[in-house]
Amino acid sequence: MYKCEVEHVCAQTGARAGKLHLTHGVVHTPIFMPVGTQATIKAVLPRDVEVLGAEIILSNTYHLMLRPGAERIAQAGGLHKFMAWQRPVLTDSGGFQVYSLSKIRKVTDDGAVFQSHIDGARHVLNAERAMQLQEAFGSDIMMAFDECPPAKADTKVVQRAMKRTVAWLDRCIAARTRQDDCALYGIVQGGVDFALRSQHVEQICAREGCEGFAIGGLSVGETSEELWATCAYTAKQMPAHKARYLMGVGTPEDLVRCIDYGVEQFDCVMPSRNARHGVVFTHDGKLVIKNRQFFADDGPLDPDCGCMTCTTFTRSYLRHLFVAGEATCATLLTIHNLAFYLKIARDARAAILADRFGDWQVQTLARLASKRWAA
Amino acid sequence: MYKCEVEHVCAQTGARAGKLHLTHGVVHTPIFMPVGTQATIKAVLPRDVEVLGAEIILSNTYHLMLRPGAERIAQAGGLHKFMAWQRPVLTDSGGFQVYSLSKIRKVTDDGAVFQSHIDGARHVLNAERAMQLQEAFGSDIMMAFDECPPAKADTKVVQRAMKRTVAWLDRCIAARTRQDDCALYGIVQGGVDFALRSQHVEQICAREGCEGFAIGGLSVGETSEELWATCAYTAKQMPAHKARYLMGVGTPEDLVRCIDYGVEQFDCVMPSRNARHGVVFTHDGKLVIKNRQFFADDGPLDPDCGCMTCTTFTRSYLRHLFVAGEATCATLLTIHNLAFYLKIARDARAAILADRFGDWQVQTLARLASKRWAA
Repeated sequence: MYKCEVEHVCAQTGARAGKLHLTHGVVHTPIFMPVGTQATIKAVLPRDVEVLGAEIILSNTYHLMLRPGAERIAQAGGLHKFMAWQRPVLTDSGGFQVYSLSKIRKVTDDGAVFQSHIDGARHVLNAERAMQLQEAFGSDIMMAFDECPPAKADTKVVQRAMKRTVAWLDRCIAARTRQDDCALYGIVQGGVDFALRSQHVEQICAREGCEGFAIGGLSVGETSEELWATCAYTAKQMPAHKARYLMGVGTPEDLVRCIDYGVEQFDCVMPSRNARHGVVFTHDGKLVIKNRQFFADDGPLDPDCGCMTCTTFTRSYLRHLFVAGEATCATLLTIHNLAFYLKIARDARAAILADRFGDWQVQTLARLASKRWAA
Repeated sequence: MYKCEVEHVCAQTGARAGKLHLTHGVVHTPIFMPVGTQATIKAVLPRDVEVLGAEIILSNTYHLMLRPGAERIAQAGGLHKFMAWQRPVLTDSGGFQVYSLSKIRKVTDDGAVFQSHIDGARHVLNAERAMQLQEAFGSDIMMAFDECPPAKADTKVVQRAMKRTVAWLDRCIAARTRQDDCALYGIVQGGVDFALRSQHVEQICAREGCEGFAIGGLSVGETSEELWATCAYTAKQMPAHKARYLMGVGTPEDLVRCIDYGVEQFDCVMPSRNARHGVVFTHDGKLVIKNRQFFADDGPLDPDCGCMTCTTFTRSYLRHLFVAGEATCATLLTIHNLAFYLKIARDARAAILADRFGDWQVQTLARLASKRWAA
């Protein structure tokens, strides 16, 4: 069922446009995947996520295994049916959240033993369990179980994580029982060390059992320049005929730059989390809705955005909702921020198909960097 | 512009069905008015409130005068435009919230001087100001400024409130500058004392300057039986050719009973506030979504409800969202609870028009009183 089709490589840059054929639909790349951690995009109903044009969302195995549990989701007919989302879903392996959220954990060559951050219950997560969970969810794209060290980790820690990630990938491939209705992506680690990245690409991307590959271990504390350089260096060594997914990245600027490097899948909590704190992404940079400058501003959040929020409500009204602590503010700002990220991806795709991604990138980065909304 | 049309009085009961012709549209009665305190229904977007079939909403003058202020709303083109709600709006006078929310207040025969519960700023609210504010909002129905004592107030306090309420109504009528594009409702007080109610109906409902009348001073601490008896006693003395609005009431059972007494307009925070706490109204009584009994329940909240929540999501999923603390839970449960209240009003209307409201009431009250969802 899974097929990664590279439609076009931009003549000006290395940016790629393509299609991912998945069990629950076709995804046009480059694509941004909104994050629905606990089987819901925070503050936005699935119907509205569809209207935004999101073709695939991400959900988190760690959260779902703890609550409501994979067995419940499987009984309910899988994650799509449980959450009433008909389009593709990518799930992570749960590893990253074990490292960042669980209270007490022990990571060995076998995997992780940890206590739930919710109720302290003891859980095991390893390669085999990560496959079992994601197959129970019915994910369109499953991520291999990996170890993701922080940016400032010692080389030895990074190397141990790389070794485990390769061994765990082989165990994921062996443990997988569903071949035809889902995909498995392996994850390249190696921190911001080019030599380690090369070495790990060579190992991970040699695995035939993977339909696609991801760049992991970024957006974990390194600088933007390190992120961009590592992504550029790593992506170009990855197989051209398979999908490239940059995990957990990033700002609109990060997307625009990394699409240039030949990456086509992205996810990040940034648009939705920022929305809940009143930070709005626009073509002209970030806008802080609570600022007094918007008190009497009857214009839309972003005049170049066609989302429901921008076509229906004013900055003044949205500021009022934010200041008044109304939940509809989070909903409306999240709708806009996701619309904006999805538009960036769609505009990038159009520019790639027209062989003018380079020009578009220069213009887009210049506008994003403007300080138009500085208070 | 305003016209109250009594279409039909049920042959079995005193229940009335009619139409309110307002500047922003026609309202079919009996009607429940969802509460949008701060220029938004909490957790639900105006588009979804429309889809629910809400023909009129209520908004609170006290909150809007403090934030964002009547001047801002007027500048933005009025409340409808500010909040992107095209249908009718009823606003209260602000008095009730001054008594219940403001930190420091002094109420005299002139009106109220109070400190904002938000920032402590000093404000004046009296008959003239209440009219000025509601006219600035562009309300379809304005409420007269009244004094609403608690249920356990001394007779002397109730009598003083009645006297002030009459005097303030005359000042409201005199202060009103917009006659053609809005309505003014006077408010009957008198606690749960029948003699006082009779006396106040006679005084208030004699005022020609009012397009409709409300029963105030209920749902302020009295028993359900006192509420029903007082409503029944008061409503039947009110003019038959004008609208009757029971303020701040109540449970589904209260609606079903008070429609019988010839009341046709209701508002209450109960459906939306309960939804945010996971309490769901169904035809078979209340359901507490967090209860373990719904963990693996893949049925709809209420099989007899056609709302988006009931036709799309399961109890199990909604319980998951509630337990996980997801904002989409409040949205989905509020949508259902409002749909349920609106359906009660619509079903009541259909029963009245068919001269079988009495039968419908008996069946409906019996189902509502069932303990089907008792944990």
